[in-house]
Amino acid sequence: MKASRIRHGDESVMAPLNARRLRIHAVHEAVVFLRSDSPVGRAEGLGTQTRVTVRSGAREIIATLYQVDGEGLGLNEAGLSESAWHQLGLHDGDTVSIRHQRPLDSHSALRRRIFGHRLDDTSLGMVIGDIAAGRYSDVHIGSFLTACTTLPLDLDETCGLTRAMVDTGIRLDWPASMVLDKHCVGGLPGNRTTPLVVAIVAAHGLTIPKTSSRAITSPAGTADTMETLAPVNLPIADIRKVVEREGGCVVWGGSMQLSPADDVMIRVQRSLDLENDGQMVASILSKKVAAGATHLVVDIPVGPTAKVRSAPAADHLQGLLESVAGSFGIRAVILRTDGRQPVGRGIGPALEARDLLSILGNQRHAPADLRERSCRLAGILLEMGGKAAAGAGYETALRTLADGRAWKKFVAICEAQGGMTEPPVAPLRQVLRAPEAGRVCGIDNRRLARLAKLAGAPENASAGIDMHVRLDDAVEDDQPLCTIHAESKGELEYALAYAEGNPDIIAIDPL
Amino acid sequence: MKASRIRHGDESVMAPLNARRLRIHAVHEAVVFLRSDSPVGRAEGLGTQTRVTVRSGAREIIATLYQVDGEGLGLNEAGLSESAWHQLGLHDGDTVSIRHQRPLDSHSALRRRIFGHRLDDTSLGMVIGDIAAGRYSDVHIGSFLTACTTLPLDLDETCGLTRAMVDTGIRLDWPASMVLDKHCVGGLPGNRTTPLVVAIVAAHGLTIPKTSSRAITSPAGTADTMETLAPVNLPIADIRKVVEREGGCVVWGGSMQLSPADDVMIRVQRSLDLENDGQMVASILSKKVAAGATHLVVDIPVGPTAKVRSAPAADHLQGLLESVAGSFGIRAVILRTDGRQPVGRGIGPALEARDLLSILGNQRHAPADLRERSCRLAGILLEMGGKAAAGAGYETALRTLADGRAWKKFVAICEAQGGMTEPPVAPLRQVLRAPEAGRVCGIDNRRLARLAKLAGAPENASAGIDMHVRLDDAVEDDQPLCTIHAESKGELEYALAYAEGNPDIIAIDPL
Repeated sequence: MKASRIRHGDESVMAPLNARRLRIHAVHEAVVFLRSDSPVGRAEGLGTQTRVTVRSGAREIIATLYQVDGEGLGLNEAGLSESAWHQLGLHDGDTVSIRHQRPLDSHSALRRRIFGHRLDDTSLGMVIGDIAAGRYSDVHIGSFLTACTTLPLDLDETCGLTRAMVDTGIRLDWPASMVLDKHCVGGLPGNRTTPLVVAIVAAHGLTIPKTSSRAITSPAGTADTMETLAPVNLPIADIRKVVEREGGCVVWGGSMQLSPADDVMIRVQRSLDLENDGQMVASILSKKVAAGATHLVVDIPVGPTAKVRSAPAADHLQGLLESVAGSFGIRAVILRTDGRQPVGRGIGPALEARDLLSILGNQRHAPADLRERSCRLAGILLEMGGKAAAGAGYETALRTLADGRAWKKFVAICEAQGGMTEPPVAPLRQVLRAPEAGRVCGIDNRRLARLAKLAGAPENASAGIDMHVRLDDAVEDDQPLCTIHAESKGELEYALAYAEGNPDIIAIDPL
Repeated sequence: MKASRIRHGDESVMAPLNARRLRIHAVHEAVVFLRSDSPVGRAEGLGTQTRVTVRSGAREIIATLYQVDGEGLGLNEAGLSESAWHQLGLHDGDTVSIRHQRPLDSHSALRRRIFGHRLDDTSLGMVIGDIAAGRYSDVHIGSFLTACTTLPLDLDETCGLTRAMVDTGIRLDWPASMVLDKHCVGGLPGNRTTPLVVAIVAAHGLTIPKTSSRAITSPAGTADTMETLAPVNLPIADIRKVVEREGGCVVWGGSMQLSPADDVMIRVQRSLDLENDGQMVASILSKKVAAGATHLVVDIPVGPTAKVRSAPAADHLQGLLESVAGSFGIRAVILRTDGRQPVGRGIGPALEARDLLSILGNQRHAPADLRERSCRLAGILLEMGGKAAAGAGYETALRTLADGRAWKKFVAICEAQGGMTEPPVAPLRQVLRAPEAGRVCGIDNRRLARLAKLAGAPENASAGIDMHVRLDDAVEDDQPLCTIHAESKGELEYALAYAEGNPDIIAIDPL
């Protein structure tokens, strides 16, 4: 089949439009607005919510088109959302051209995966490459994530996905031959061990350049918590200086182009409140491979309402993590921990930061559970790094906290990252109390996390929950169980309404 | 756990905003714009792309919030997209209140389904109810559809989904005790039998009130094609009058609130280019149950590039269709047809309408394959309806065409629907030719449909493909194989680029 094609110069098809910055914030997708009677829209056959290619000079982005009536926009203008404006590097007076998004070859791979066929490395590379380049709509990304959950990714696919994700970004390397790293699969509110582990390990002269994420489905990610104590959004050159000087850092990895496809997918995962093992392993390990890690400890909390709910589920995740890490030459040690209840007292960025400071400062009422977990994880890394004999890592870590070396190192890291700050305090609080005397017989991590999120965490750093009881504690009638912290009346109301509807988030077995 | 809740009056939390109509067309989702420094946004903790509840008086919708900087919008204004404005029934000067979307109970059912657990009728009812009410984002709808494809819906789920979809809308009833209906599962370009079947069956005095859909993933739905011949968007009262007078109609079912959740899901299916058996059966049968059908013939084209590709796939679909139809008391007969190539000559609304008119008018070059299929389907209904002896339906249908009764009935139906019109003709055309002499050895329905869609079908009614050859035809070098019809230069270019990249859509076996 051949076409005696009439060639049009590119410009005749893509008449330029005057770009207009609309200062509309559309986080997930670039958005462009056109008059519904625009001659370009008509010539290109562009309807509302068409996916389009917007080009300016050599730069090109995919955006979603909305049509607008009336005088707000000129006939020869294209209105651009903030992310579209910045991605294209536009200035006032620039022009853009708009046409249909080209068909994506990777969509047929996506379609095969949706229908239950496995994808090979090449197909996964195409899908992930298009996702990283912003060519997928959120609906398509969500569909890919769902298909990989309903028919779980197998080992080959997880390796392929990890490699594809690494390939979309940059890879760091470090002068040290041994680069340590630490990860927690999450799901346990308040389990903020990372800053402590980094401080302890770096205090021994080991290299631990920790890049952390913000919350996906939790009320706080390590980067959210750390940000209440020091800047975490550093350019790579500055991170290198911090690590060179202090051996460790705790920074946000999201702006570093380490596995950038992961960041795009995480936004959609967040809106679907969805994670699966293969995706989780690829997300964790693609970041670690890209960050140049050689040795890794992974905390897997196990409990009925944690992310990993049973020993068999932990077995599956652990097997996948070890196999995939091994195939990338990373030595990974997995530590399973008690996931039945939150760790420490605070849930939410600033409240968790307060717990960290109390442990580093050896305060009398510092949460013992958070200290113990951090030292177990740090101990494994100290042993891997040859700073403690086998079996002696935990004690070494505890000593490093007790004698103030960890505190000194943590302050030095914060200063190197741009200066230590005081975590904010929420203006609004509300105590939730025991409805009767009894014993705390259950704490629902998931609904507790939801409660903290409804209160505004992590977007509002001071928002969250402060826990006053732990499992098996005896309580009096009306004794405070926890306190909701919020920055706005609307969010406090919203959290309270949820707490009223879920009185068993902290369950009391009556006397 | 109890909260000594400080109650705020609803108004203190939900400060009213002045509603401003922005005349932005967002087809899928209602959109609301707020200044990023809006005090209400701050008090409610609303970030960009938050899902919010917008209320005006007793009406309430779910919308996606975008934040806007600068002077375009006042501090106490909420800008609303057209669909949000209309759904709320707003007038200039009205106020609205905005707050976070309440958590949806059905999201945990969705989550269970994504993780591979089956849903019962109650859970499906919750999910579908929320989808029909517009409470799901497109990402969530896409995720539900994907999960039901990757782990296919089983019989129980398909029945549950069908019932849930029927329950979201209205149900029609008709004076006749026997109400005939017809459906094609699609996937075959140009297979536009419905208007012919309705004309033939109604000509015999039977009742066939046909509500049709617009295209989902094809270049034309029956409603799109019929719309080039007569109005199809009629209020129910008018449809009743048409059916009362003529026994039959061919109208668009989308505005009738028959299984409205289906319409919402179809929009997302369309953007994902996705259909699965269970979803397809629920979509078909929920419309039929809601439309009051008692007897149904279903055309399943089978071919390597049709929607149903093999006999086993057809068996599965047929089994599911018959079982689910039976459980709703509908007698369904399935007819499997040749799905190896397009039917008729035209692909796209107006080009297909032209084929219909040539058959109804007994024109000499009218496409024989389309006539034959229509008469086989109509024959089954004539036999079901007692208007032809068993085995004699096909001949009876052919006679009804040949003697002009079908033509007369079709014209009468068009007039009753609001007046017969002439299908439009595309201003731009481009012939695709054989690259060498040989024999047509393959026609790829899917890519041909894609080509027609790239040319602008069905949004542009005159756009599409006109086929000049069929399978096994001998062709000369440079002989026309098909002609692309388009309404805009951009779309013609786009289709041509696709044709150049896919020269084997119509494959020639050289001599």
